[in-house]
Amino acid sequence: MISINREAMRVVRKVLDAPERLGVRVVTLENGSTLIDMGQQAPGGWAAARYYTQITLGGLARVSYEPFPLAGRMLSAIRVMIDHPLEACVASQIAGWRLEGSRAGAPILAGPGRALNRANPDHYLDLTSYRDDYHEAVVAIQTADPVTAETADVIAAACRVRPQDVYILVAPNSSLVCGVQVAARIVEQALHRLAEEGLDLNVVKHANGVGVIPPLIADEVVAMGRINDTLLYGGIATLYVDTTDEAAATVVEKVVSVASRAYGRPFVEIYEEAGRDFYNIPLDLHSPAVLHLNNIRTGRTFSAGVINEAVLQRSFFGE
Amino acid sequence: MISINREAMRVVRKVLDAPERLGVRVVTLENGSTLIDMGQQAPGGWAAARYYTQITLGGLARVSYEPFPLAGRMLSAIRVMIDHPLEACVASQIAGWRLEGSRAGAPILAGPGRALNRANPDHYLDLTSYRDDYHEAVVAIQTADPVTAETADVIAAACRVRPQDVYILVAPNSSLVCGVQVAARIVEQALHRLAEEGLDLNVVKHANGVGVIPPLIADEVVAMGRINDTLLYGGIATLYVDTTDEAAATVVEKVVSVASRAYGRPFVEIYEEAGRDFYNIPLDLHSPAVLHLNNIRTGRTFSAGVINEAVLQRSFFGE
Amino acid sequence: MISINREAMRVVRKVLDAPERLGVRVVTLENGSTLIDMGQQAPGGWAAARYYTQITLGGLARVSYEPFPLAGRMLSAIRVMIDHPLEACVASQIAGWRLEGSRAGAPILAGPGRALNRANPDHYLDLTSYRDDYHEAVVAIQTADPVTAETADVIAAACRVRPQDVYILVAPNSSLVCGVQVAARIVEQALHRLAEEGLDLNVVKHANGVGVIPPLIADEVVAMGRINDTLLYGGIATLYVDTTDEAAATVVEKVVSVASRAYGRPFVEIYEEAGRDFYNIPLDLHSPAVLHLNNIRTGRTFSAGVINEAVLQRSFFGE
Repeated sequence: MISINREAMRVVRKVLDAPERLGVRVVTLENGSTLIDMGQQAPGGWAAARYYTQITLGGLARVSYEPFPLAGRMLSAIRVMIDHPLEACVASQIAGWRLEGSRAGAPILAGPGRALNRANPDHYLDLTSYRDDYHEAVVAIQTADPVTAETADVIAAACRVRPQDVYILVAPNSSLVCGVQVAARIVEQALHRLAEEGLDLNVVKHANGVGVIPPLIADEVVAMGRINDTLLYGGIATLYVDTTDEAAATVVEKVVSVASRAYGRPFVEIYEEAGRDFYNIPLDLHSPAVLHLNNIRTGRTFSAGVINEAVLQRSFFGE
Repeated sequence: MISINREAMRVVRKVLDAPERLGVRVVTLENGSTLIDMGQQAPGGWAAARYYTQITLGGLARVSYEPFPLAGRMLSAIRVMIDHPLEACVASQIAGWRLEGSRAGAPILAGPGRALNRANPDHYLDLTSYRDDYHEAVVAIQTADPVTAETADVIAAACRVRPQDVYILVAPNSSLVCGVQVAARIVEQALHRLAEEGLDLNVVKHANGVGVIPPLIADEVVAMGRINDTLLYGGIATLYVDTTDEAAATVVEKVVSVASRAYGRPFVEIYEEAGRDFYNIPLDLHSPAVLHLNNIRTGRTFSAGVINEAVLQRSFFGE
Repeated sequence: MISINREAMRVVRKVLDAPERLGVRVVTLENGSTLIDMGQQAPGGWAAARYYTQITLGGLARVSYEPFPLAGRMLSAIRVMIDHPLEACVASQIAGWRLEGSRAGAPILAGPGRALNRANPDHYLDLTSYRDDYHEAVVAIQTADPVTAETADVIAAACRVRPQDVYILVAPNSSLVCGVQVAARIVEQALHRLAEEGLDLNVVKHANGVGVIPPLIADEVVAMGRINDTLLYGGIATLYVDTTDEAAATVVEKVVSVASRAYGRPFVEIYEEAGRDFYNIPLDLHSPAVLHLNNIRTGRTFSAGVINEAVLQRSFFGE
């Protein structure tokens, strides 16, 4: 059996071995938990971003950089070649674990620690029967706020590990690491939407994705908009499914952002118009720009969506 | 001296260390040989496919994934940057060792074990003076059939190693691993054809190649067609040669698939028309789609062939 | 603190572990220094070229190969994702250390050993406060000439290390390794030019670059021209800066090769017309083809320059 926390910890240890080189800051909290700052006070970098991405994917992906031409400019993209997509994405990468209780704006956790959470497993875990059992827990939080020992204690308790066996990665929207790791979320973006449209995710056998890395900006809200635009307008997910052509054909058209009535403008505009309340934004917007479903049973490929250069250009370059 | 079996075994050991993560199944045959199933009963995956490719290239290549735009869709390709192309491709990657005797439809072996075969070295080995000498033998078989201890015994005897020192990778046409590793064969496809057209392969100093990974399909025959189309219509080989411009210019035009009279249709159609008999298909069809020969002596580059989007679209998407 | 020589030595040791596989030749000079020939008598290769590039970047970059379409042909490019760009490029990769005294045509050194040189630190080191302190020194020399123990002694003395702790990589213009490692210099090409135009390099937080790998040619002068053309006409540098928009907007237009009056012809023609004297060539020509400055403070991106396919085609293919 795969343990995604064990696999992720192999990558975490590489980070702990070379914090200066990676531009990260390792802090031991009062309770003994390890906080790895990859973009708050520390600068982070390309190597750190790859590790963050691999860790949140439970160590189950090959991650690389590549070119992404956009409207006359040459940007970079992050590519994820994912094995075990349910374990890697559904049980790990999705930011699905909202910590309750402590305070408003409670942290939302991604990473393999989610699959250890027996106290209050998040609802995305309903989509897979996979659960992990390991003595170390790894989570990641996309935040500009400090992460406290109190938070780490809650995680340790839920995952039934000792506080000193909890490892928490953090990076805010505006950081390089966050720009990369969100672009790398294109497959999980497709998976949870496919489930919402009724597909049994157990038909998904292999997956890969590519997402453009947005230009960085210090403003956390605008940065949040750009990283969402990367997924909505600049990301491509390819899933290899074993199902009927009818099932694939039906679902593919629904699970692309262009199918949402909210589609067509930079995310920050949609967010502002919704009163900065995510719950006022149609859920179906959170789909990939492009989705390919290769039905390995019949060999047919079902494709929908489009890379929207115009919106990306407006979001990224104000043009 | 390089031992391609020793180099390949370094990669094999990585596979043996993490079968669950890689989606492979490791089986010890009755005679002690190790069978590594990467796509028969096991699902395989992207990481397994890279390892399979590295192993069949004798550990002498850098292997990575990249984008491959095709007719409005974004597919993925596999890139191989090959050092020692004769050892890597001619003495190892080419599927040239046809096991005789045991039964009809006998397995055809690729991989570095070929360079250990002193019993009946295959004729591709005539193209290089390289031979390996190592106590472990690694081969790969592209098959949906079970591989038996009897087969492993034949390999062990020919390679003069103990049965427990034989390692056999298997993946059928329809598997992800096979789709990738065949796309990665574009340089060997060029090399054996160049030799057939009279080029002394010792002039080849460096090589690289890129091949599109075809959509998967369960049907073994159609899958076989698609992986061949990848080479014939969607693969690019670049060789760095030290020769005369005349020699390069003469040969380049012959060693591209477009030069064959059989060119122009999906391979499965050609195969069916030939009565499903490979020997009825012109040998010169088995060339890369595109070939670049960079003559490092004069600096000139000789190019021929073309990526044929229309045939790929028909083969991959039925369009 | 990062030690770029320590980081580079990790890569050097990988090279020393596998010279045959990498196509390199390791020679111990009379004084105990280690010479690593990656293209003079040894053929080198793709893996060696990646290592050379990583070493000259002080171990601070992710280096990968990718496609580079050019005028109907598919070439390859080298991508560098650089953390700590000042340490990696300014203190290490720039070929800034000209050995004096011994003879005319004295070697020019690149690599992390530059940051150990207390005897006569080169003027590029004025651009960063970073200095290394380590007991081993690594340098690289782009030359077709033999490198002597005398040269190694001068390096050892300047770096205050023992001669047996000096490691010297060499590759001539015409070699594969050199074609790759020069294409990988696109970020340092941007950095020193930005400094020359008055930008304080401390504003540079992250960087990446892509450069096309030129076709190889035995003639050292024509090879030198092609590798320069790669930077001037076929390289893209992207820097993430924390500065004012005004500063970024002003400088970006000056730091692209198209801004130079010498721009527009293959470098070898410019070089010949300048009487083969580098000092007669305008310094501002040594800029990247394309420069993107992403101001992370405001989120704006300032871009200038262009990939010049016509000049590349003339330089690479004589068309």
